Amino acid sequence: MVRAIVLLSGGLDSCVTACIAKSEGYELYALSFDYGQRHRRELESAKKIAQRLGMEHRIIGVELPARADALTSAIDVPHDGEIGKEIPVTYVPARNTIFVAYALSWSEILGAEAIFIGANAVDFSGYPDCTKPYIEAWNDLIKVGMKNNRVRLLAPLIDMDKGEIVREGIRLNAPLELTWSCYEGGEKACGTCDSCLLRLKGFSEAGIKDPVEYGSTPS
Amino acid sequence: MVRAIVLLSGGLDSCVTACIAKSEGYELYALSFDYGQRHRRELESAKKIAQRLGMEHRIIGVELPARADALTSAIDVPHDGEIGKEIPVTYVPARNTIFVAYALSWSEILGAEAIFIGANAVDFSGYPDCTKPYIEAWNDLIKVGMKNNRVRLLAPLIDMDKGEIVREGIRLNAPLELTWSCYEGGEKACGTCDSCLLRLKGFSEAGIKDPVEYGSTPS
Repeated sequence: MVRAIVLLSGGLDSCVTACIAKSEGYELYALSFDYGQRHRRELESAKKIAQRLGMEHRIIGVELPARADALTSAIDVPHDGEIGKEIPVTYVPARNTIFVAYALSWSEILGAEAIFIGANAVDFSGYPDCTKPYIEAWNDLIKVGMKNNRVRLLAPLIDMDKGEIVREGIRLNAPLELTWSCYEGGEKACGTCDSCLLRLKGFSEAGIKDPVEYGSTPS
Repeated sequence: MVRAIVLLSGGLDSCVTACIAKSEGYELYALSFDYGQRHRRELESAKKIAQRLGMEHRIIGVELPARADALTSAIDVPHDGEIGKEIPVTYVPARNTIFVAYALSWSEILGAEAIFIGANAVDFSGYPDCTKPYIEAWNDLIKVGMKNNRVRLLAPLIDMDKGEIVREGIRLNAPLELTWSCYEGGEKACGTCDSCLLRLKGFSEAGIKDPVEYGSTPS
């Protein structure tokens, strides 16, 4: 079996991405990161998803050199619904770049041929490290900078809107009930941060009830 | 003053690179990594160099997902002088990629305009992540994947041989006596690992005595 790594946050997108990779027949290794995120409870979701899909799973501690964003510092997560107008305060500098770098390191030792990332650029927060040119730039860098330069960074959701992502998850029997998207990381999802709004849009467009409970007051 | 980050291993190349960056007038921030390297004592050198050059300095702990190289696992460092014939066992998968990713994260918060790396591709071990195409690929990735896409990865030593690097260090009054290059990380430098051999070649070509003591038996 050909090996692949899945970047698994524990959210909707990475869960569906893992199911797509599985359906393509890869032997999967999941990689998650504890980078001091407010919604660290997503890592519990990641563990459960990895277990459900039978993936070996590593959680790497990432010590950011500095923090000035709404996910890892005292800055509040916005609940204003201003999605996609500009790069929001929830953008963690170079987060995906750090994650892909670690995955590349592991890929050499595993001899993996693919790294899957749940990035998508239709219904998204406007993060620059979630776009198609970004994925392509990584694949160019891999060709010249790695010993295992066969590995490819793949983003199967990149052109899907959130409704399509939910429908794809349902089609593949993805354990969406295990996923966690809310940036607040409370008891229940807040329903009003960018991540909840995009997720709810997806379930609404797909005509499916989100299995996750909503109702926490933002911290 | 324009800010820049220097990737500072504590070795000869990164020390000279820091001095070049300083001579160009940047306000410098140094970044080092504790990734479980056998020659962790290089971090003591990095601290002293940062202090001497007046740089703010952070040392980030990096937990590699897996280890199968001679710098971070039980595999022996080679002392056979076979430099540059193929990628050696001292190659740590995606090491520079991880380091640059962290530097990019910090650069956004600092508003830094440059990241300096001591990579050079003339007298080198053949690591793919030390070449000019690799540096160029990063600069392409930065343009599309960062919020602060003004930052540039700069490798001022890339075309220099080791003799030129030593001479440049002397010219800039670099504290070469504080640097540590040996992969073994013993009391004294071993003098026979790839890193020592390349360093000694540089001092020999420059006609200067290496201020570092040699003589440790390889572990």
